[in-house]
Amino acid sequence: MAKPVSGFSKCTKDQKIEWLASNYFADANQGSAVLKQYWNDNQKLQKLHDEFIENAVTNYYLPFGIAPNFLINDILYALPMAIEESSVIAAASNSAKFWLDKGGFKTHVKGTIKSGQVHFNFNGPSDLLRTFFDSVKALLLEGTQAITTSMERRGGGIISLELVDLSAELSDYYQINVRFETKDAMGANFINSCLELIATNLDRQAANYEKFISNNYSLSIVLSILSNYVPECVATATVSCPISLLATESISGLEFANKFVRAIDIANASVQRAVTHNKGVMNGIDAVVLATGNDFRAIEAGVHSYAAKSGKYKSITHAKIEDGIFSFWIEVPLALGTVGGLTNLHPLVKLNLEILKNPSAPQLMQLVATAGLAQNFAAIKSLITTGIQKGHMKMHLKNILNQLEATQEEKVAAIEHFSIVAVTHAAAKNFINSYRNR
Amino acid sequence: MAKPVSGFSKCTKDQKIEWLASNYFADANQGSAVLKQYWNDNQKLQKLHDEFIENAVTNYYLPFGIAPNFLINDILYALPMAIEESSVIAAASNSAKFWLDKGGFKTHVKGTIKSGQVHFNFNGPSDLLRTFFDSVKALLLEGTQAITTSMERRGGGIISLELVDLSAELSDYYQINVRFETKDAMGANFINSCLELIATNLDRQAANYEKFISNNYSLSIVLSILSNYVPECVATATVSCPISLLATESISGLEFANKFVRAIDIANASVQRAVTHNKGVMNGIDAVVLATGNDFRAIEAGVHSYAAKSGKYKSITHAKIEDGIFSFWIEVPLALGTVGGLTNLHPLVKLNLEILKNPSAPQLMQLVATAGLAQNFAAIKSLITTGIQKGHMKMHLKNILNQLEATQEEKVAAIEHFSIVAVTHAAAKNFINSYRNR
Repeated sequence: MAKPVSGFSKCTKDQKIEWLASNYFADANQGSAVLKQYWNDNQKLQKLHDEFIENAVTNYYLPFGIAPNFLINDILYALPMAIEESSVIAAASNSAKFWLDKGGFKTHVKGTIKSGQVHFNFNGPSDLLRTFFDSVKALLLEGTQAITTSMERRGGGIISLELVDLSAELSDYYQINVRFETKDAMGANFINSCLELIATNLDRQAANYEKFISNNYSLSIVLSILSNYVPECVATATVSCPISLLATESISGLEFANKFVRAIDIANASVQRAVTHNKGVMNGIDAVVLATGNDFRAIEAGVHSYAAKSGKYKSITHAKIEDGIFSFWIEVPLALGTVGGLTNLHPLVKLNLEILKNPSAPQLMQLVATAGLAQNFAAIKSLITTGIQKGHMKMHLKNILNQLEATQEEKVAAIEHFSIVAVTHAAAKNFINSYRNR
Repeated sequence: MAKPVSGFSKCTKDQKIEWLASNYFADANQGSAVLKQYWNDNQKLQKLHDEFIENAVTNYYLPFGIAPNFLINDILYALPMAIEESSVIAAASNSAKFWLDKGGFKTHVKGTIKSGQVHFNFNGPSDLLRTFFDSVKALLLEGTQAITTSMERRGGGIISLELVDLSAELSDYYQINVRFETKDAMGANFINSCLELIATNLDRQAANYEKFISNNYSLSIVLSILSNYVPECVATATVSCPISLLATESISGLEFANKFVRAIDIANASVQRAVTHNKGVMNGIDAVVLATGNDFRAIEAGVHSYAAKSGKYKSITHAKIEDGIFSFWIEVPLALGTVGGLTNLHPLVKLNLEILKNPSAPQLMQLVATAGLAQNFAAIKSLITTGIQKGHMKMHLKNILNQLEATQEEKVAAIEHFSIVAVTHAAAKNFINSYRNR
């Protein structure tokens, strides 16, 4: 039975692994060897990676690949993608190829504004609070200058600072809502530092405000933090072509286009479908988000809450047929950065930004939106024509064969066999066993 | 200017890198060296990782660490976490330590049922469709037996299969809604294979149904796929203690508890806050999801849509004070697997499941829910007391110092200096430059 450990964070990496081995591994040597086989030989590089987080013991390998042939606003890109799920890069590449000779992807940015809030309680009348706020607003802004000056030099800073009365939602609850432009930085540190300064000043000013004191009204800060809800930080990507160009071996262009638009209508009508539909979009988005050192939890939270903003959870992609032209587009909130964070620290992230032609944050937003749209196009195309299992089962078989340590010859034989027989783990195991004993 | 490439997927890994180098790297040799420095020396291991996805060129290192001291249902766990964000593992570890002597985390599973849908159009009267459905339902179920037999042996299978009329939402739109128990498998392949069989049979039966033919009614399948909306696949985790035990250096236990509950109330009142609140929960959840080879996009989609299920996007954690006892809990949909997918293939995933005592899928759901709750506890604790920037700026400074390739001596001097001065990139650079030239 394991015992609690003290001072674990101060142990060396080897000590941490020893502790794990003696408490949690079935075979101490084997478990330690698994961790250590993932260390990089270059000690300096490994140390760099170890220092990104606390209690690091090794590197988790996320498969990393390239989806080429993305024509985006007439420039040809190859998208770097970090993703453990098979079929995602194949799907992205297929979409890119499909749209390559049809004008490619057209993208733009609808906005780049982020926000943060000082959340506080006030137990007096809201009009008095507003009078107080108006009297201290300039002071609150001034108080952030130590931090905002360098951001302003880069063209960013605080866009607006407003009092929001939410006391109808929750008694005594108010916000200072602050909107920011953070240029190429994701801006979390900048935004949070500004907010904490504003909160401190707000608290101090309120404590000295004569009409609060004399009436025993109190203003108390609960917490201050940026918001990952970013409906003003949105990129779009669009593909379009005459419907005749959508024809496949099995269906006409018109039938394809109608079925495609219907698939989107269904995602808007059914939450069961919408969630999976958007999940597929995120396969493409997150893979590029990860590869460029951005925070996929922030992006996920922003996208799904945006999908739910009408009160009904819906698709974040849209399609229509107009005058014989099929159009398919995405409109998606993406608070991304291309400076700060991991972007300058992780050597592979740095290289990936180079592959993407060292984009500004708004440019990266458009590339990531494209990855999401491409992924969704491939998924819907497959779902409304052949179904998704054909491709998945092929990958599934490949994984099972690896697990069974099949030789190249065995793999070829198995792939032929299962081209007409349903793939299950048991069937694959049986096949390989009898092949080996033939 | 780059040119489109054909047959990229069939190139060798070296050829792919050469193509990237000649089209996208500023310095071909240096870029290739960055990719190759992340290859594993063990060629067999590297080949295994390369085959997880298409067009793999290297491994993306995600930092991997351990958060110890999680007492969950009276058993002591260490949680493996793959996460690029600093502070997450430190926060998880702090929460674990905090609750260790207060009874730890109590968890349970509310359900493990997943669903999938056959989405189709029908242009006739819905009561006739229902009559048809009732007449073919047994046949549809029977048609899945080739796949369901082995799942049934493990205690899983199809739980229910029902017709859902959504024609009021979208004209002519109906679903066959199928509910599944997939035991320790995430079950995507199983569910999708079942659904595609059901769809094929439904299509065939409808084409031969006399009353559809004679009236020219047509039933047409649009698509069939599992749903990542899983409100029946839910785990809970709870911590609780007398409020007196919550006192910190700066505030009393009662004040802490009240402020904590208020922070949750605010997350339920403000979408700006709720999204960030849940994002923080997902920092903990995704780190364990990734480490155990599960699909974080599926989990993210399930959680955020669940947070929005009332029509208003809300917190997925909850808190209350009752009879002097503070309770804090999470109720979260988590469709996870501990067999299939990467779980048996990725050596580090396999080891991580061993660290977690080789859990069943329901057990893993509880461990992951705990990681989310712990993360949220640490975040709120920090937000309502010191604010989050203090810790973040310390990590921020560490990262800047690494980027500036500061020596150990320079780091010590810088940390001391910035304990009283605000951290910015420029200030840190200036400090190191003047330290070097002193």
